[in-house]
Amino acid sequence: MIALPPIDPRLDERMMQLALQQALVAYEADEVPIGAVIAVGTRILAKSHNQVELLNDPTAHAEMLAITQATAAIGGKYLPQCTLYVTVEPCPMCMGALRWTQIGRIVYGTADPKGGYMHYSDALPHPKSIIVGGVCEEECRELMVSYFRRKRR
Amino acid sequence: MIALPPIDPRLDERMMQLALQQALVAYEADEVPIGAVIAVGTRILAKSHNQVELLNDPTAHAEMLAITQATAAIGGKYLPQCTLYVTVEPCPMCMGALRWTQIGRIVYGTADPKGGYMHYSDALPHPKSIIVGGVCEEECRELMVSYFRRKRR
Repeated sequence: MIALPPIDPRLDERMMQLALQQALVAYEADEVPIGAVIAVGTRILAKSHNQVELLNDPTAHAEMLAITQATAAIGGKYLPQCTLYVTVEPCPMCMGALRWTQIGRIVYGTADPKGGYMHYSDALPHPKSIIVGGVCEEECRELMVSYFRRKRR
Repeated sequence: MIALPPIDPRLDERMMQLALQQALVAYEADEVPIGAVIAVGTRILAKSHNQVELLNDPTAHAEMLAITQATAAIGGKYLPQCTLYVTVEPCPMCMGALRWTQIGRIVYGTADPKGGYMHYSDALPHPKSIIVGGVCEEECRELMVSYFRRKRR
């Protein structure tokens, strides 16, 4: 069974708003503002935000923490019925991790032309994962732009 | 300062033997037998083995656990003076994580033509990371072959 596109056409946007709330928590903590949610339909299995600085751990991206939470929640290593919502296009590390989970759908907000997985290889996602970009794109991007503008000050 | 090749020409082999000991711990626990060590010269910062089954976490590869340990040990996110020793060529997730650490050297045992990062993109490692393959290759490969042979029984 795979993760089908939502029947409610607003579900992706509503879930991305939750991911954006998580990104805002990161922003307030002076972390790169990226948030993630993993859900089966409307059932949320994981909510997380980037914690690289807090944990002093370069692997503590929002998506990685969400995967660990979600697999713990379901008690299995695979997430074919799940959708990951993340505010920014995943990096190769996170897409490599998502590949291992065989996740059904990946919905991201804004593209990351320099650091995103597409810059390296479009073969990184699991072949069964459906990928959707550009959901709440403007808000996701604005948060990143605002963060890096603040950093440069 | 970057991680220079070892002055002792046997250091890579000796460190890989420690990584192999870790891989054997994984093997005995019925995990895919991959082990990793992170060191600065002869000073070991991290030793780990694959714990995907034990932790029910697809991100719990030996390299990921070693990165988290090593960054905690030094209290910093970057590992330019460090060498990672791992018994098998890293997958894209692990190489993506190693890229974030800017690790100085990556020494692996046996190649993984299907699952290794090279199958996807040779641009995944950090441009400053020196990569050496084939150290204790036979032993590293034998352990993997033996594991998958046992699995198929």
